Amino acid sequence: MSGRLDVVGLGPGREGLVTPEASAVLAAADALYGYGPYLDRVPPREGQARHPSDNRVELDRARAALVAAGAARVAMVSGGDPGVFAMAAAVCEAVEQGPAAWRAIEIVIHPGITAMLALAARVGAPLGHDFCAISLSDNLKPWPLVERRLAAAAQVGFAMALYNPISRARPWQLGAGLDVLRAHLPGETPVIFGRAVAREDEEIRVTTLAEADPAGADMATCILIGTAETRVIPRPGLPPLVYTPRRAPA
Amino acid sequence: MSGRLDVVGLGPGREGLVTPEASAVLAAADALYGYGPYLDRVPPREGQARHPSDNRVELDRARAALVAAGAARVAMVSGGDPGVFAMAAAVCEAVEQGPAAWRAIEIVIHPGITAMLALAARVGAPLGHDFCAISLSDNLKPWPLVERRLAAAAQVGFAMALYNPISRARPWQLGAGLDVLRAHLPGETPVIFGRAVAREDEEIRVTTLAEADPAGADMATCILIGTAETRVIPRPGLPPLVYTPRRAPA
Repeated sequence: MSGRLDVVGLGPGREGLVTPEASAVLAAADALYGYGPYLDRVPPREGQARHPSDNRVELDRARAALVAAGAARVAMVSGGDPGVFAMAAAVCEAVEQGPAAWRAIEIVIHPGITAMLALAARVGAPLGHDFCAISLSDNLKPWPLVERRLAAAAQVGFAMALYNPISRARPWQLGAGLDVLRAHLPGETPVIFGRAVAREDEEIRVTTLAEADPAGADMATCILIGTAETRVIPRPGLPPLVYTPRRAPA
Repeated sequence: MSGRLDVVGLGPGREGLVTPEASAVLAAADALYGYGPYLDRVPPREGQARHPSDNRVELDRARAALVAAGAARVAMVSGGDPGVFAMAAAVCEAVEQGPAAWRAIEIVIHPGITAMLALAARVGAPLGHDFCAISLSDNLKPWPLVERRLAAAAQVGFAMALYNPISRARPWQLGAGLDVLRAHLPGETPVIFGRAVAREDEEIRVTTLAEADPAGADMATCILIGTAETRVIPRPGLPPLVYTPRRAPA
């Protein structure tokens, strides 16, 4: 068995943010695998098979695509960037745990614009200096580890992007995470909620850590947390610019 | 004064990774500002003025573009993503410090594929779980702060991307930074050096923290550091896959 599996990042949603490379690979594929709503974003092509799957079955989806990759041009579709809380790690995990023959499959990963970069661009440069990306989901890691990471990031002055902030099955984690941050950062630290960034129903709200309300987030929200140095520049008639200076104090 | 300034991310280098939105904005601009080698990547267009500048004059470059933005369609060209150790923060800083009239200029930032995502895609999913991005440059922040951030990131299990690892003026910092990491992470922790990623002269090397040699890096290198959980999957006839599992132990 040999073959090739392309893992393709669609970016945050708008077509103008899909790379030409990603578009070309998707157009050429015989079969597409992915979470249903992401597949729906790919322009249809006659004769191309689509295998939508549910949200939380990444490993099963990866295995199905690897099985198919021996015999056809297969692309795995990922939202944002496949390497950031998305499908690339699941594909690698499936290869490692799968039959030896899967190690002969060429895995080609096509990067995309991940949510935190699209959101940061909409408001200025809140991730303009050292920063981290943390998934608030405790499905695959213990919650105390999330809290340790949030505390450490705040203590050393990382700006932060929070992915998977909340869901029906994880209703309290965002509130608890914000409380951890409040113990280490000033209440006026800028916080940005971005929902459905770069899509038609995009909603962006700039607030502060003191005022941040978990009710303002859902599964489609990415949240950026500034540092004690992050600036908000008011602008008459325009939304404020938010940026974290390149210069950091000792 | 009003006007508009587009800040455009070119991605890591290959044309197939420039978003259609970025290409369209660059093609329509009357004047381009940016670091010379980045401007050289933009397809030439008759009648379009180009204002290349040197590497370390971000703030002057931002001011020049803001001055011009009142009277023409101006685009500031950035490598990678403008929001990640690039031009977006400098533009915001210039707006904050500049004349009040600059706050009426619309600032539109177009995200791009930043180096760490392009490099991660080439080897698997080394940033597959929580991670951070740290610039090793101590031009604008004190070196002890860099060391504190590296230590904290290693202690709580962030994968890491190191930007600006070394330069002629900063010859020892990468070695010192790796030593900090060695104090907290196993010697076999995977380390990836990526030079000129997604360009014709791309060089990628997968090594370990114990073996990582600062001499393998230059100004065009991005370095990824795994966690204690990061896996390297050997593959006969193919380069190894490197990934950080989505599942983290307590």
